[in-house]
Amino acid sequence: MISKSKIKSITSLKQKKYREKHGLFVGEGPKVISELKQEGLEIHSFFSVNEEEFINENHFHVTQAELQKISFLKTANTSVAVFKMPEVKPVNNKGLTIVLDAVRDPGNLGTIIRLCDWFGVKQLICSTDTTDCYNPKVVQATMGSLARVAIHYVDIENYLKASSLPIYGAFMDGENVYRQKLQQDAIIVMGNEANGVSESIEKLITEKIAIPQFGNQRTESLNVATATAILLSEVRRFTEM
Amino acid sequence: MISKSKIKSITSLKQKKYREKHGLFVGEGPKVISELKQEGLEIHSFFSVNEEEFINENHFHVTQAELQKISFLKTANTSVAVFKMPEVKPVNNKGLTIVLDAVRDPGNLGTIIRLCDWFGVKQLICSTDTTDCYNPKVVQATMGSLARVAIHYVDIENYLKASSLPIYGAFMDGENVYRQKLQQDAIIVMGNEANGVSESIEKLITEKIAIPQFGNQRTESLNVATATAILLSEVRRFTEM
Repeated sequence: MISKSKIKSITSLKQKKYREKHGLFVGEGPKVISELKQEGLEIHSFFSVNEEEFINENHFHVTQAELQKISFLKTANTSVAVFKMPEVKPVNNKGLTIVLDAVRDPGNLGTIIRLCDWFGVKQLICSTDTTDCYNPKVVQATMGSLARVAIHYVDIENYLKASSLPIYGAFMDGENVYRQKLQQDAIIVMGNEANGVSESIEKLITEKIAIPQFGNQRTESLNVATATAILLSEVRRFTEM
Repeated sequence: MISKSKIKSITSLKQKKYREKHGLFVGEGPKVISELKQEGLEIHSFFSVNEEEFINENHFHVTQAELQKISFLKTANTSVAVFKMPEVKPVNNKGLTIVLDAVRDPGNLGTIIRLCDWFGVKQLICSTDTTDCYNPKVVQATMGSLARVAIHYVDIENYLKASSLPIYGAFMDGENVYRQKLQQDAIIVMGNEANGVSESIEKLITEKIAIPQFGNQRTESLNVATATAILLSEVRRFTEM
């Protein structure tokens, strides 16, 4: 059995303000939950339709219908876990860092977090108007990567002003990325889906780079997640030559 | 006014079998519709809330409530167009071709079509169990790219058997892609989201390549669309050096 007040408090976590207020977020299904646990994230409460998973006072055995009431998925999986948000580590000024300037789409953010994890980028710095990484869609898409990449929400203008690393940004009129030797200790700034990098941030870019277009001139610009994939690959390829 | 039977026949186009039966598909909103028209696609019928767009017998002025009835979007835009599917051009055996082996997610297919357009890949060959490119989600995501890339649904095993081009495929145990010089006249095979390239197709790959992983070993593999982005960039970068 699951009380109405518990249902209400869990479903409230769909909203960022309640996630922040309580320092909690939701992960669903055995794969996502076990990956986040494996990365050391602490479980606040756990709900499963499988009785064998009922192992302590914060674990609740529920029916599929009850699970559906607390699930954010159209069709609930077999379990839902409420996790405590991990403590945010201090910002690191070494290595490769991705900075997101107002990326809004949870699918794009999720893809970029997984790309950071793949390419060994340990730190992702997001403007405060970038979509929240504990948004349920992002959690389900990123799985363990969410816990392996340190994600910070900060005033990116101040962050960039204080940095002495090369700051790369993708711009149509930038230098051809294939003719550059990109640095491993650097910052790459990626902009908003519709408007790109904002003006105040553009001024702080030290090296504008471009991914050349090979097709029709009428083509839409590359999606922010695929552009991030290509730029990360371009940085890392130099370590493999 | 829009009749019930018209509403029914348009909404039936959400399903692939009716799209194929009638050779029609739906695009929504001024941007998508004008891009597809600009690429030469023929409009079968057009529905708009703006009276000024009412210009011939196949153009209908409708209310926002009527438009919502025929729209596949949660919130209808200002117009819906039913397009005739373009004639499929003959398969070309030159240049760079992407082959998809059972890619199921419309978002991934949409991203790959836009990537083909960006990187000047004129031909995309899909296995018959790859998601349909006239799926409404794909149409809205790809816009004009859908009409600029020739998309074929064929028996890819036969297609690959008949080809004499190098056939690249991404595999965990492949050769490091950064140490290869990839050919411009070639085929790149990308596999299903969960299972990768199927066994019968794997046998036909002439060069297995891998995108190295730089992060934690527990990381999920790259998403098929981001892997496609990186491989296309790797092929094209050689023309720019």
